[in-house]
Amino acid sequence: MSLPTHVRLVEVGPRDGLQNEAQPISVADKVRLVDDLTEAGVAYIEVGSFVSPKWVPQMAGSAEVFAHIRQQPGVTYAALAPNLRGFEDALAAGVKEVAVFAAASEAFSQRNINCSISDSLQRFVPIMDAARQHGVRVRGYISCVLGCPYEGQVSAEQVAPIARELRDMGCYEVSLGDTIGTGTPGATRRLFEVVGAQVPRAELAGHFHDTYGQALANVYASLLEGVNVFDSSVAGLGGCPYAKGASGNVASEDLLYMLQGLGIDTGIDLDKLIAAGQRISAALGRASGARVARARSAR
Amino acid sequence: MSLPTHVRLVEVGPRDGLQNEAQPISVADKVRLVDDLTEAGVAYIEVGSFVSPKWVPQMAGSAEVFAHIRQQPGVTYAALAPNLRGFEDALAAGVKEVAVFAAASEAFSQRNINCSISDSLQRFVPIMDAARQHGVRVRGYISCVLGCPYEGQVSAEQVAPIARELRDMGCYEVSLGDTIGTGTPGATRRLFEVVGAQVPRAELAGHFHDTYGQALANVYASLLEGVNVFDSSVAGLGGCPYAKGASGNVASEDLLYMLQGLGIDTGIDLDKLIAAGQRISAALGRASGARVARARSAR
Repeated sequence: MSLPTHVRLVEVGPRDGLQNEAQPISVADKVRLVDDLTEAGVAYIEVGSFVSPKWVPQMAGSAEVFAHIRQQPGVTYAALAPNLRGFEDALAAGVKEVAVFAAASEAFSQRNINCSISDSLQRFVPIMDAARQHGVRVRGYISCVLGCPYEGQVSAEQVAPIARELRDMGCYEVSLGDTIGTGTPGATRRLFEVVGAQVPRAELAGHFHDTYGQALANVYASLLEGVNVFDSSVAGLGGCPYAKGASGNVASEDLLYMLQGLGIDTGIDLDKLIAAGQRISAALGRASGARVARARSAR
Repeated sequence: MSLPTHVRLVEVGPRDGLQNEAQPISVADKVRLVDDLTEAGVAYIEVGSFVSPKWVPQMAGSAEVFAHIRQQPGVTYAALAPNLRGFEDALAAGVKEVAVFAAASEAFSQRNINCSISDSLQRFVPIMDAARQHGVRVRGYISCVLGCPYEGQVSAEQVAPIARELRDMGCYEVSLGDTIGTGTPGATRRLFEVVGAQVPRAELAGHFHDTYGQALANVYASLLEGVNVFDSSVAGLGGCPYAKGASGNVASEDLLYMLQGLGIDTGIDLDKLIAAGQRISAALGRASGARVARARSAR
């Protein structure tokens, strides 16, 4: 029952976050956000996505963002690459680490990426080959691990073989995403128990959305299961695309506050992280979704 | 590490919640709220407070509220009684259970109730005597158990003797309140370990504010420590008087959602609870502070 002493935060605000914001955002603001996060000591930043701008207009200009950010040694700047074309674009932009994503529910896979789970995994094979050839590391995402907007309940047993396959394919880490935020701590612990029997826990990450307010409780439950990598989004960027007005990714500031309270090291400066979140929130013309940021600024 | 199978929610929205809302609220709306909560299956409702309306104008009319609510058998309708005068007024209004409150920090006690912790406990003696005489049960609150807006850190060792004294005085339950919401799960567990050595855990309750987003993680930590009574506020009523714009009491809906996910029985109907929260939020002219309510209504 001992907690990890160190946790790695994977900052997904510039990608998963901004991708789901209604407001368009300039390349300059994205670059500033990534630089602010680097300055705050964040060691892993998902900077953008190499997808067709027809599908995800918010992610247009990812190559330009990569060209302008000030990359610091020891920090990973990653991008989403859903297909070989995206991978090649990422490579051309100098990206050293990419992420691929599958879903744990068939209905979500069909509606979100227009193919079966099995087909989506097959599509990753050429990406994995090309990545190996170019020395690019690949991280895997699985969405809807604790619930699906179309199918409802998703069992840990559905998630485990997909996580195993991503690992066997060569993903060095698999992030389990509660995309719609319906998970609660007991289900979270069971998820990591079941998936952890197929993939070592040191190669798993937790990705929790706060739509139902459960994200930090789920992170704490995951810590108790030995998970020590978590995805989060500064200022709670992102909202929830499946429930307008509801919150999305857990806010990095709230997560960091909890980890600091637990005495867990992350290398991140909370004040600088809050400042980064306040600046991007101002650029978006909205209040920060981080409760810690609101509490601090309200004092 | 087994969780409780049943949890009692103490609904503090009509008192701790409305007391901290800027908007004035009519007796009729308060009565409706209490009746809605009864209808949802809430077994313990803190209805009002018998304090001078000069101090807490929002609580004026508590006697009238008690006169008009439809009390159901098996449901506790309680009131705050900070002094003997308040206790007598509560008694005259037919109240069967009252609560008294002390602080864990000297500075907070001085600024909030204008006397030392020790003096505040002494003031409860005649209330306890009168309560015993009239067969009225008394619940004790301790505020600032995980942090104080004036003193900062508060240790579990400061809290334990106060909890012990309230119990020795005759309080059947002592609710430990993280008034400013700065607590995190490790500190919460330590709190219940230390206080639990002085007062049986079955006589302790957790009262968490969500100002820093930590409330549900703290509840989960408390459940792991065997605590099975929690205070919460429907629609997250209350805000935070120490940080304008920040959130206050954990929302009952979000807490109930987590407990249901954990398979813990409370006897409360989530849909009816959400409806109760939506109605009082509409009366206050603001959005519900419950994430579960926002996610549901956004679907």
